[in-house]
Amino acid sequence: MAREVQDLSVRSLGELLVKRGFHLGLAESCTGGMLGERITAASGASDYFLGGVISYDDRLKVELLSVPPDLIVEKGAVSSECALAMARGVRLLLAAEVAVSITGVAGPGGGTELKPVGTTFIAVVTPQGERVEQYAWTGSRHGNRQKSVAAALELVINSLVGEDKA
Amino acid sequence: MAREVQDLSVRSLGELLVKRGFHLGLAESCTGGMLGERITAASGASDYFLGGVISYDDRLKVELLSVPPDLIVEKGAVSSECALAMARGVRLLLAAEVAVSITGVAGPGGGTELKPVGTTFIAVVTPQGERVEQYAWTGSRHGNRQKSVAAALELVINSLVGEDKA
Repeated sequence: MAREVQDLSVRSLGELLVKRGFHLGLAESCTGGMLGERITAASGASDYFLGGVISYDDRLKVELLSVPPDLIVEKGAVSSECALAMARGVRLLLAAEVAVSITGVAGPGGGTELKPVGTTFIAVVTPQGERVEQYAWTGSRHGNRQKSVAAALELVINSLVGEDKA
Repeated sequence: MAREVQDLSVRSLGELLVKRGFHLGLAESCTGGMLGERITAASGASDYFLGGVISYDDRLKVELLSVPPDLIVEKGAVSSECALAMARGVRLLLAAEVAVSITGVAGPGGGTELKPVGTTFIAVVTPQGERVEQYAWTGSRHGNRQKSVAAALELVINSLVGEDKA
């Protein structure tokens, strides 16, 4: 997704959140802050964006985001369970209505047979529900991270819009 | 500073930190995660990078980074005092040896006579000392944020190198 399209996504997301009086919090692992950077690229983000935690080290997932250490041992830091726990954790920590998390193997190292490079999980938690999705990117580290950011924006937007229709 | 030069800075920073056995934590306000994104652009960052807090909303500066609320009222969230408190706070929160913080008026709105758009404060705290610097950028929002990221990298590197010479 081109940067211009992402900027449009960010604007749509902002409008959806403001309309509901919701505030957004992030928990970013493999993207390292890229989603936050994108959301704050235009001024006015402070109307709906609280901030987030860059939980690059697994210790921060446990200590700041309250991800159970056993979960990381059993399911891995790159798992749907961990993504969901990260989103739930940052939502509580920041007292945000809406939270999104990203955890994945951006590459080029770190891949395994079960979780090859590009494997990424994104979770969204809103006052009305929870969603977690798995992705399998096949690009460079930079490309994989950009795709994760675009997918996260799309997933939050779809979650909020879907709740309207439900 | 071009992206290539910043990548070199990140590599130098990583080498300096690994050599000392230090780990880095971030507190980003106006840059919204851009510094974390840059540091994690290349793989291997996990050797020295813990993560950080995107404290875009002032409430997070207080609640997560232990910045005294009175300090924000009296000196402002964009001040040398707040930058230093953010760096100290995230250093404790993350149990990081080295912490860096960025707080500024990225623009285009938010400027005042005393603190015009571009006013930025960056603080670095290491086991050996503290530094805080003021900058006056004159570019676009994107340009100001990029300059802040480059200046933060430079300030941490200079702090670590300076301590060697001291």
